[in-house]
Amino acid sequence: MSELVRAHERLDDLARDNLKIIQNPGSFCFSMDAVLLSSFVTVKRGDRVLDLGTGTGVIPLLLSSKTQALELCGLEIQADMADMASRSVRYNGLEGKIRVVQGDLREARALLGRDRFDVVVSNPPFTSVGRGLVPPTDGMAIARHEIMCTLEDVVDSCSRMVTPGGRVALVHRPSRLVDILWAMRERNLEPKRLRFVYPSMDAKPTMVMVEALKGGGKELEVMKPLYIYDDSGAYTQEVRDIYFGQEGEG
Amino acid sequence: MSELVRAHERLDDLARDNLKIIQNPGSFCFSMDAVLLSSFVTVKRGDRVLDLGTGTGVIPLLLSSKTQALELCGLEIQADMADMASRSVRYNGLEGKIRVVQGDLREARALLGRDRFDVVVSNPPFTSVGRGLVPPTDGMAIARHEIMCTLEDVVDSCSRMVTPGGRVALVHRPSRLVDILWAMRERNLEPKRLRFVYPSMDAKPTMVMVEALKGGGKELEVMKPLYIYDDSGAYTQEVRDIYFGQEGEG
Repeated sequence: MSELVRAHERLDDLARDNLKIIQNPGSFCFSMDAVLLSSFVTVKRGDRVLDLGTGTGVIPLLLSSKTQALELCGLEIQADMADMASRSVRYNGLEGKIRVVQGDLREARALLGRDRFDVVVSNPPFTSVGRGLVPPTDGMAIARHEIMCTLEDVVDSCSRMVTPGGRVALVHRPSRLVDILWAMRERNLEPKRLRFVYPSMDAKPTMVMVEALKGGGKELEVMKPLYIYDDSGAYTQEVRDIYFGQEGEG
Repeated sequence: MSELVRAHERLDDLARDNLKIIQNPGSFCFSMDAVLLSSFVTVKRGDRVLDLGTGTGVIPLLLSSKTQALELCGLEIQADMADMASRSVRYNGLEGKIRVVQGDLREARALLGRDRFDVVVSNPPFTSVGRGLVPPTDGMAIARHEIMCTLEDVVDSCSRMVTPGGRVALVHRPSRLVDILWAMRERNLEPKRLRFVYPSMDAKPTMVMVEALKGGGKELEVMKPLYIYDDSGAYTQEVRDIYFGQEGEG
């Protein structure tokens, strides 16, 4: 199967079910955000799941192992990333479960048909255009910065693609929390679960994960903190469980 | 001065500048929320500060010691509480600095004149009417439940009473976070600082404190957690500093 991996690419281990992912170290590689989001989102047996801006497909790949989803679909605007994601799906023999579509999430409806999904997830670009340092390569810039889509575009698409009563889960920067919650409620996606990710017990959070219910009632659960590192500087047990644990299997 | 304290009342020590507060143990006594809020809110030298729903006046009393506010005003709808607050102000000899007004925060403009304040704080009732157990006495019920005013009434009044560029700080339950942030932004109060209060490092937060800027730009700082208890079950150093420390003095 190694003909699926190109010369400049790398085959990384997802530390779960022997899953591998094809990535290009010179372009964008998935980060911890995607891994934590794939453990945060509620996916039930038989759910159909859409990942908006799937990149190299890490979220559908992880969810294929962590959950009992029936079907997973990843939408990615960048052709080279969508191509890597497709090849990873083939490498892992998951063509029957994961579908990768290349295209703009703002046109998800036209691209994916009238179908709605039980769950829509997204690890969207974090940085507003004109803020922060723009990373060196275009691919990375598009993945990290709001060049192709704004936060509002992402939430719009989530709301249009999710079924009534379905769930939408996002990971983003805490500095955008008001924008996220506002954009969700404005589109009838009521935030129900919120979890902050803290590098350590005495630091500001660096990420926030939100799960909303399409048409849900107003009552939010703010969960206990998710800490990345313990006092000794090692990964916490919870992070190790998320990366290497057997959650959701069987 | 003890003629200021009635038979059924108690004189409690605020552990700061020898400040005392008159409370009725059979009615409502202030809780940690108010103490934490008085340390969270940004009050600058010379600021005029309004506390909406001041109860027995704990927030103005603490702020008179913790900050260099020029003037503090507490508005309280319940006559017996407003009376206790007034007597506490006299007991502490703070009549030149703290003013207590009895009345409805929804009519704050009419009650307090056209004046606006640099800072408006509130520790409002937390529980929606029809939810939770209604506490036994009326006074406590009004202080704890949204009988006399909803969260939206409180934020409305904050927005009307604060000067452009002024600050509004609230403490509330995390379950209402979306409602708080929504109500604030809707009224041109942009949330700028958010801090969760966790009983311990491995628990859900029980309180959230938010500070908004009237007419501020969109960028939120989510602060590091405020933990109440450490691993041994004792108050953390930060909580002890808030209760007994010398912050803001001199």
